[in-house]
Amino acid sequence: MALIVQKYGGTSVGDLNRIRNVARRVVKTCQEGNEVVVVVSAIAGETDRLIQLATQVSDNPDLREYDALISTGEQVSGALLAITLHAMGYPARSFLGPQVRIVTDNTFSKARIQKVEIKRLQKELKAGRIPIVAGFQGVDKDGNITTLGRGGSDTTGVALAAALSADVCEIYTDVEGVYTTDPNICPDARKLARITYDEMLELASLGAKVLQIRSVEFAKKYNVPIHVRSSFSEKRGTLVTKEDEKMEKVLVSGVTYNKNEARITVVRVPDKPGTASRVFTPISDANIIVDMIIQNSSAEGYTDLTFTVPKADFKKALKLVKKTAEEIKAQEVLADENIAKVSIVGAGMVSHAGVASKMFTALAKENINILMISTSEIKISCVVEAKYGELAARVLHQTFGLDKGELRKEP
Amino acid sequence: MALIVQKYGGTSVGDLNRIRNVARRVVKTCQEGNEVVVVVSAIAGETDRLIQLATQVSDNPDLREYDALISTGEQVSGALLAITLHAMGYPARSFLGPQVRIVTDNTFSKARIQKVEIKRLQKELKAGRIPIVAGFQGVDKDGNITTLGRGGSDTTGVALAAALSADVCEIYTDVEGVYTTDPNICPDARKLARITYDEMLELASLGAKVLQIRSVEFAKKYNVPIHVRSSFSEKRGTLVTKEDEKMEKVLVSGVTYNKNEARITVVRVPDKPGTASRVFTPISDANIIVDMIIQNSSAEGYTDLTFTVPKADFKKALKLVKKTAEEIKAQEVLADENIAKVSIVGAGMVSHAGVASKMFTALAKENINILMISTSEIKISCVVEAKYGELAARVLHQTFGLDKGELRKEP
Repeated sequence: MALIVQKYGGTSVGDLNRIRNVARRVVKTCQEGNEVVVVVSAIAGETDRLIQLATQVSDNPDLREYDALISTGEQVSGALLAITLHAMGYPARSFLGPQVRIVTDNTFSKARIQKVEIKRLQKELKAGRIPIVAGFQGVDKDGNITTLGRGGSDTTGVALAAALSADVCEIYTDVEGVYTTDPNICPDARKLARITYDEMLELASLGAKVLQIRSVEFAKKYNVPIHVRSSFSEKRGTLVTKEDEKMEKVLVSGVTYNKNEARITVVRVPDKPGTASRVFTPISDANIIVDMIIQNSSAEGYTDLTFTVPKADFKKALKLVKKTAEEIKAQEVLADENIAKVSIVGAGMVSHAGVASKMFTALAKENINILMISTSEIKISCVVEAKYGELAARVLHQTFGLDKGELRKEP
Repeated sequence: MALIVQKYGGTSVGDLNRIRNVARRVVKTCQEGNEVVVVVSAIAGETDRLIQLATQVSDNPDLREYDALISTGEQVSGALLAITLHAMGYPARSFLGPQVRIVTDNTFSKARIQKVEIKRLQKELKAGRIPIVAGFQGVDKDGNITTLGRGGSDTTGVALAAALSADVCEIYTDVEGVYTTDPNICPDARKLARITYDEMLELASLGAKVLQIRSVEFAKKYNVPIHVRSSFSEKRGTLVTKEDEKMEKVLVSGVTYNKNEARITVVRVPDKPGTASRVFTPISDANIIVDMIIQNSSAEGYTDLTFTVPKADFKKALKLVKKTAEEIKAQEVLADENIAKVSIVGAGMVSHAGVASKMFTALAKENINILMISTSEIKISCVVEAKYGELAARVLHQTFGLDKGELRKEP
């Protein structure tokens, strides 16, 4: 008997028929002799509807109230799934973040999980009931409702799997797994049977919207295997696990593409200790996530500082940076929303030379100019003009042979 | 400085504009130097939408889950009102039943309030913030979400007012107060400036949908003045208070009309001790509220037992009664859904003779046959054929002079 956490995304519970479909899947898993804990997202579109209500009454809604508002979506889908399971003869009970006690900090709208209590869930499992947990939400130490940010239900699922020492956390979504690149951009994209946490982290943070990045961090930290799969298919999806010897080290396992960032450059910053800190502290205080940061080598005591932020936070970030630039007597601030970031990711990269130059050469052949470069152990990212983004992704997908051959088949 | 609990019904928060209107009222009350605690219902139609979702997945939804589902309506309107107040520069915080701690028993969907904790609300008031409490919901001792039944937000409002020793509980609705009868049936209906708890109890239980009956019981028990008024008007509404000497004792203060009940008769029940208990215990165990009960005098050791139940529970009640009737060897069970109940209510009735005969005479004049009669100290109810119900109400409204003259004007 295995203990399985199943997390169903918004499209998987998209309407009452799909909720019935989910109920049947849950029942089947139970009938196969497993214990199941279910985590649900809100019905597709519901969270957006609630966010729209909030923004209609205020441009800048109070975040405590925003969380109280948007957390209702998961409460609705959880209760509906429980009612459906009851009607099928299976005792189920829905629980909210505060009822399980999924304790978070109090960064409303982007809270982080600090502790997961499992007593209540274990009691339900012992009593033969199926616990259904509302994803995306928690409670701070003062009893306020918090939410975990977009895709937070993934993190709820993995955090519960970790706390319960579950055998696997199944993440049900509307795609069949993790692909070598976005199939909408590159029709040759293929499903990966396995992928490492680190590769997935790079893929997730680079825009492959399959999993919330924090859920992968959690999974890696507590070594929880994640099985990403479709709720509309019986096929196996992609297993996200730690690297093991059986896993073939492919040079590049995925190409990602992201046009949701904007670039800000602070020109001629006096090059002295503490400058970077003065630029980035106000941005980080505003809870804006900075992605790439590049500082060119200094000339005549001055340097240029370039970085990217999510487009959604672009205006806010620009305002903060302009203020700082004035204070530190930088020459000017340049901004560019018209960019795309293309990256290649692969655990095999660590031990191979020549991957970067192969990437740059392939882009050059297509006359694509590279605006920024940033690298990590297992990824290389290039920022290019937005109009070349999709072409760049396709070219790289082909260059690294992701469009053919076998890719880490399930043993 | 007064402490005022303001409860806004579903139509009062019917859309975002109306929520803004409510926010302005709350702000005005604060600006006049009062402390305000707000209780909100769900946006009009939302609870019905949620109930429909539940009944679409199950004919007989699990009630614990049903409560978790339908309690989200008040969470949404409460958070939206808080966001609106914030945007207007007034710090407000929404709270759910479990957050305040409004503790109830665990009769899901019809729970009763057992205890209201006020520490959190007092803390908010002290900090100069406006607490907004989600109506209609509570939490049982095991942390499960419960709801208080249709109109339960009224009871939330009054219970909070009682616990906080508020000066008044204002109930905002879409009518201007309590009327002598339903203006839809009788265009001559007039607003009452004042009414006693007992009169209101009789009016509420008889179908004047202005206030949930339990809220009036609560108000009477803790002597909380209720001010029923419209959120769309500045006019004073109806004050529901204890009887005082200044209050003119009118013979009849209201006529009510209710066609949501059905009648069940158990024919030729062996007339011995314990029979009524055997008939009504299964019905009460099923949480069905029995309204009128009439037992005719015994003949030859047998009697007929007639009673009314809400139409919504009619089939369930009939099934239970038929089973009991067989066990106690009654002759048969008759049922009639085609009835209406017309009642006259008035605190002055206690000390006046001839009210009943005046009522019966008025009905007889119109050839309306009376099927059942039941009386209390301050009310007389007659069940008539459904088709005569509205006519009966109009005739009685006129007979007792409710269509003209002054009615307990505010001093």
